[in-house]
Amino acid sequence: MKNLAGNFFEDFRIGQDIRHATPRTLTAGDVSLYIALYGSRFAPQSSEEFARELGLRAAPIDDLLTFHMVFGKTVPDLSLNAVANLGYADGRFLRPVFVGDTLSTTSKVIGLKENSNRKSGNVYVRSTGRNQHGEIVLDYVRWVMVKKRDESALVAETLVPDLPHHVTVDRLVVPDGLDMRLYDAELAGSPFFWDDYVAGEKIDHVDGITMEAADHMLATRLYQNTARVHFNLHVERGGRLGERIVYGGHVISLARALSFNGLGNAVFIAALNGGRHVAPCVAGDTVYAWSEVLDKAELPGRTDVGALRLRLVALKNEPSTGFLDRMADGGYHPSVVLDLDYWALLPRR
Amino acid sequence: MKNLAGNFFEDFRIGQDIRHATPRTLTAGDVSLYIALYGSRFAPQSSEEFARELGLRAAPIDDLLTFHMVFGKTVPDLSLNAVANLGYADGRFLRPVFVGDTLSTTSKVIGLKENSNRKSGNVYVRSTGRNQHGEIVLDYVRWVMVKKRDESALVAETLVPDLPHHVTVDRLVVPDGLDMRLYDAELAGSPFFWDDYVAGEKIDHVDGITMEAADHMLATRLYQNTARVHFNLHVERGGRLGERIVYGGHVISLARALSFNGLGNAVFIAALNGGRHVAPCVAGDTVYAWSEVLDKAELPGRTDVGALRLRLVALKNEPSTGFLDRMADGGYHPSVVLDLDYWALLPRR
Amino acid sequence: MKNLAGNFFEDFRIGQDIRHATPRTLTAGDVSLYIALYGSRFAPQSSEEFARELGLRAAPIDDLLTFHMVFGKTVPDLSLNAVANLGYADGRFLRPVFVGDTLSTTSKVIGLKENSNRKSGNVYVRSTGRNQHGEIVLDYVRWVMVKKRDESALVAETLVPDLPHHVTVDRLVVPDGLDMRLYDAELAGSPFFWDDYVAGEKIDHVDGITMEAADHMLATRLYQNTARVHFNLHVERGGRLGERIVYGGHVISLARALSFNGLGNAVFIAALNGGRHVAPCVAGDTVYAWSEVLDKAELPGRTDVGALRLRLVALKNEPSTGFLDRMADGGYHPSVVLDLDYWALLPRR
Repeated sequence: MKNLAGNFFEDFRIGQDIRHATPRTLTAGDVSLYIALYGSRFAPQSSEEFARELGLRAAPIDDLLTFHMVFGKTVPDLSLNAVANLGYADGRFLRPVFVGDTLSTTSKVIGLKENSNRKSGNVYVRSTGRNQHGEIVLDYVRWVMVKKRDESALVAETLVPDLPHHVTVDRLVVPDGLDMRLYDAELAGSPFFWDDYVAGEKIDHVDGITMEAADHMLATRLYQNTARVHFNLHVERGGRLGERIVYGGHVISLARALSFNGLGNAVFIAALNGGRHVAPCVAGDTVYAWSEVLDKAELPGRTDVGALRLRLVALKNEPSTGFLDRMADGGYHPSVVLDLDYWALLPRR
Repeated sequence: MKNLAGNFFEDFRIGQDIRHATPRTLTAGDVSLYIALYGSRFAPQSSEEFARELGLRAAPIDDLLTFHMVFGKTVPDLSLNAVANLGYADGRFLRPVFVGDTLSTTSKVIGLKENSNRKSGNVYVRSTGRNQHGEIVLDYVRWVMVKKRDESALVAETLVPDLPHHVTVDRLVVPDGLDMRLYDAELAGSPFFWDDYVAGEKIDHVDGITMEAADHMLATRLYQNTARVHFNLHVERGGRLGERIVYGGHVISLARALSFNGLGNAVFIAALNGGRHVAPCVAGDTVYAWSEVLDKAELPGRTDVGALRLRLVALKNEPSTGFLDRMADGGYHPSVVLDLDYWALLPRR
Repeated sequence: MKNLAGNFFEDFRIGQDIRHATPRTLTAGDVSLYIALYGSRFAPQSSEEFARELGLRAAPIDDLLTFHMVFGKTVPDLSLNAVANLGYADGRFLRPVFVGDTLSTTSKVIGLKENSNRKSGNVYVRSTGRNQHGEIVLDYVRWVMVKKRDESALVAETLVPDLPHHVTVDRLVVPDGLDMRLYDAELAGSPFFWDDYVAGEKIDHVDGITMEAADHMLATRLYQNTARVHFNLHVERGGRLGERIVYGGHVISLARALSFNGLGNAVFIAALNGGRHVAPCVAGDTVYAWSEVLDKAELPGRTDVGALRLRLVALKNEPSTGFLDRMADGGYHPSVVLDLDYWALLPRR
């Protein structure tokens, strides 16, 4: 058999190192497509001039575009036989990526836990994206429920890794060379600096964007993410949703782009503390988003830039005005599709 | 409130200067997407070699892509609360834009007129797009009907600016360095030079292109145009059209690309004399176009290049063969969606 | 009449040379769109670093992207009035194309044969794509059935060219500078080298991708291919299929991208031996693919690279598991849409 069927739960071993395929050079084409797919308006990623005024050598690639590229490479090895993508933790953006950089990804299996039904199990990996110089640009933990090929296979190992609840402030990295003192908030499109946000504050991002099958598939292919559920209507028509499932990362990027209206100066993502794709989306769903300021932190030795810990919640087919969230029973309102916890960097006054 | 609701009619003042957000570096990615969205085939914009043979330093960005980028930036300030985009006047392309240039936009309010129902009013602005050197690349007047936040608000000022019926020939600017003497019409794909057109001539552009929701939204996001009516089916399903309205500029670009068949050597737009989005389009509509030569003009001191004043009329779901236009009562045939008046530059024999 | 109606069967002459319009500079934007449209994962085309390790000066443009660009230019002259695109033969990729290269196309009419109903005839052309240095990058024969403008027109000439059944191994060209000795198969994503394939072997490429109207139209416009049947639902709704027909090349690219799963190291296409668009596709169809190894050949003087002659068969709405093919009566199973015969280059152990 020349085709590759991907790994099943019993194929993984704790400590296993996986070198993922398909190195990818990021280009101006990827940047344009990213803007076309989400309408992102963060100024340093949109303008070479704006980025250089902040001390960067060029406009950096949107952090989430980096994430999707690094993530996409892991799919053929990790999640081709996934039942569900369960969560993210301890993700850090360590170095900006620029047009011309070539990214590749490796993963280490850091945990395994078979489900009691013995049909599947959770695989915990730490995935690491590197540029062509071997420098780490992004590092994160992800866990995913993977089917077993053979339900009777024995999986001796069980280890649920101890993951940090969130990335602590001392571990946040500010992009090399960044100097926010001359940040032009008017040109960036938002009058609000780090100083203007308070913990507990909620922000309604107002707008909604309807997803089309063509655009979520274009996005997912751009990231060379091969998970089957996103592409094959012939099969999915008979599935639970009757449609191709939108790649969860596509929803993250849409919600993040919508969050510009209220968080227009949250221009860099420093860390992904955690994240959960609460419910699936399909073409035709309209995504809205709201944010909550979970925390704010000064950064050691810096007066030009501060960090906000933000919760980004995406809804489908329900306006963000109502800040729909978890319900009394602890479960999510049925319209919640994403609950993401991240650290953003903003200029200070 | 951290989110921005945009300006309402009573927020504008005559003489007000607005510096719009989101500077944007144009890239090869934008150019490819523009071709993918419209199928444009004008040779100098398609080929670096062809452009250099005309004396340009590189392939210029399509004039309408420049227009959409400059226009897109104005939306959050000018037309987020617009009822209708009413018209354009006195637009001039003053300098070619190349890959790598960063565009930003400012606007000056040059007129205000409240509607008699006091629910809205017309705002007239002159918008100016500049490159990273501060050089003006495009300058145009637009007027738009904007809602009032508070119907009882008093708006003392009323001024309807005196706008030129069309840009006069002496104000047309030929791209710096352009020399059309060696223009290769065969390679460009059309045997017709400036000399071959006569005023009054009508040209059927023959082909029709059906618009999809995915492609008009990709386009509008690429231009970072945030007008809500283009993106949110969840809301628009309950609106007048039951669908997202296609950005009017998308229709202009489709019609212009269709006009290649008959005007393949009308390779530069020098001026926008006027324009009207006569009726809205939605996904599924098929756009056809026809042109009328309104005037032709020699350009002072030039024997290599001449100007045609053209009227570009786009229709939906009706072939261009019939040249559908205004009707006996002065109103437009219901299939007319665009009536655009512009000056194009063509090589002379 | 300023619009061009394209050539009809009686307009062609044997020996006629046609210089096609619209030179096109290929950019990073085209490469990104190509990945977004098909999800292609072949490593040398995806990574500048990987390409350089193979001795190339940069990541080459995907061979099929080159093909579509070269082909697209021929449409306004050759196939605007086509009834059917009948086949390809004797196609060779002679030189890699890189970002920044400008392609243009010429064709020579090498055969004509009127149909017995006198309503149409077959036109055989050899089309040649060249870069900005005049170097041939691709050369192939295509024949197409073209309508007559006037059924009574006399077409004296009849010549059916003698075309090779397939490109012989001695005529295959290895990209200049290519050295596969250090080929990193793990990073490329497939453990199988040229040595591992045997003639007669069939490979199921497993996955299916559903086509959307937006993405096939984006692709076809990107290639500046103007064939009307792909774009106009207003007309096609009344046609045989009730929908716009997908450009056959779009299906080739989808099938080729799917073939990565099983042929991940078949990184270059050296020749197109033949090809047939067996049945049309429309939006909503899901494309699957399987391959058959027809032959394998060493290349003179090379131990690092070998050639596989492959048959790539695409199906619509039927899994590739069943290797659906020709039926007992010699006709194709109704789900077969493409039957392509090509030579690929793979690294040797």
